[in-house]
Amino acid sequence: MIGPRGGVRAVTITKRKGSDVSRARDALAVEEPLEIRLAWREADGAKRVEPLTVTMRTPGDDFDLVAGFLHAEGVIATPADLMEMTYCRGGEEQEYNVIEARLAPGIVPDMRPLERSFYATSACGVCGKASLDAVEARGCRVLGDGPRVRAALLPELPERLREAQAVFARTGGLHAAGLFTAEGEAVHVREDVGRHNAVDKTLGRAFLDRLLPASEHVLVVSGRASFELVQKAVAAAVPVLVAVGAPSTLAVDLAARFRQTLVGFARHGGFNVYTGEERVG
Amino acid sequence: MIGPRGGVRAVTITKRKGSDVSRARDALAVEEPLEIRLAWREADGAKRVEPLTVTMRTPGDDFDLVAGFLHAEGVIATPADLMEMTYCRGGEEQEYNVIEARLAPGIVPDMRPLERSFYATSACGVCGKASLDAVEARGCRVLGDGPRVRAALLPELPERLREAQAVFARTGGLHAAGLFTAEGEAVHVREDVGRHNAVDKTLGRAFLDRLLPASEHVLVVSGRASFELVQKAVAAAVPVLVAVGAPSTLAVDLAARFRQTLVGFARHGGFNVYTGEERVG
Repeated sequence: MIGPRGGVRAVTITKRKGSDVSRARDALAVEEPLEIRLAWREADGAKRVEPLTVTMRTPGDDFDLVAGFLHAEGVIATPADLMEMTYCRGGEEQEYNVIEARLAPGIVPDMRPLERSFYATSACGVCGKASLDAVEARGCRVLGDGPRVRAALLPELPERLREAQAVFARTGGLHAAGLFTAEGEAVHVREDVGRHNAVDKTLGRAFLDRLLPASEHVLVVSGRASFELVQKAVAAAVPVLVAVGAPSTLAVDLAARFRQTLVGFARHGGFNVYTGEERVG
Repeated sequence: MIGPRGGVRAVTITKRKGSDVSRARDALAVEEPLEIRLAWREADGAKRVEPLTVTMRTPGDDFDLVAGFLHAEGVIATPADLMEMTYCRGGEEQEYNVIEARLAPGIVPDMRPLERSFYATSACGVCGKASLDAVEARGCRVLGDGPRVRAALLPELPERLREAQAVFARTGGLHAAGLFTAEGEAVHVREDVGRHNAVDKTLGRAFLDRLLPASEHVLVVSGRASFELVQKAVAAAVPVLVAVGAPSTLAVDLAARFRQTLVGFARHGGFNVYTGEERVG
């Protein structure tokens, strides 16, 4: 069901478990931006086309995604309200990352809510590469050497993160992020229902404490590593990002571009290194 | 660290495991909207205040969250760029859900990217109740009786969802959503790096197939149940939502408001019922 460009990309990674080090093939879930554009006719007959949103998604079933999004948002009520969905032609890179949804005559979307808008994701381009470029355009720079982190410490960090979580133990429903020293001391740990919010809280506290750029620190996140989380870590100049779960393709690409060490599946005494292995001691 | 209103709310739920049924106290992670407003002076001295974003977050460490968000987005570079952060006074409900961030003289944000904006979350109010009202204002109605679902089937559904996932087994990095009949047959299963995208794909396919309102169906999600996911299920008139993880407070409130059955922690033969127990057979 995942297509047309496939939902998986194969990469070569380093697997560590105790003192065992091996090279292995691994499969990553693909993450790419999708821009949804709306096309409709105003009451006076004028044609309009407006970008509605950009979402980071796994390519495949894109028309389903667009229909579901428009229906959930109340833009369309029945399949007949949606005349047509087409991929917009751009450069080769973008070919499958912009969809124009054409509304049926008489369906005029209420675009007023657009005025309260989402700066957060606005910098995303409409292809993976443009998304990476946007991070650089925003002023992020390739990271310096930073610390070396002991391999034995890495799989312990998520446990230390959990110990520091005040609320999770009671609800089982909160993500966490923690800034640690390269020796594994927790500096700040924050929790939230949203992964991105937990990271914003943690790095925001460090920012207010004048700890940024955090170029000697390690950021640990309780879930997966997406493009958005790597972007936040890069903006704070954190050289090592450790996730309990899997990274996406675009997360790995962004970490590689900025020379960040990206560690995933840090648990049960082992971990995978996706980029920046030179900082793992 | 979670405050000022606390990150946890206690509720009474029904726990089921095999044929055991018990009432229990449970703790939910709180989810509430936070609006971030920017205040600054233009080059000509004019004062401006603009809403920047609304994020669903767990209350507490809100100033950290705002600082981290603004820094990650490139709006501010040093703590000195941020003059002050204050909670805006509104009604009692909103007291801690709007923060105004005042930028230092000379810091003028580039608001152009705002033009590409996020319709998705624009309907959120600035307090939990307003968020619930917004779902109703959008045309969602209280759900009908719908089916009864066998209790023994519920903890099996996440396993059936996983079996139907094509990509997860290889990457470990994808969320899934599946629309099932009340007897447990999978109708559509979709995967994505984003939970909301997996749900949009699944319900979008159902929409295009003219299966909506899906008033006899069950939606199963691989992760936690947030406000956003319940909202999408309510918009599709799905009477039963089953999550592998925990729900948030606002997810439970929204399900209760629309008389949806919300099941969480569906695994290892057991599950918790948060709302709408009458549909569990």
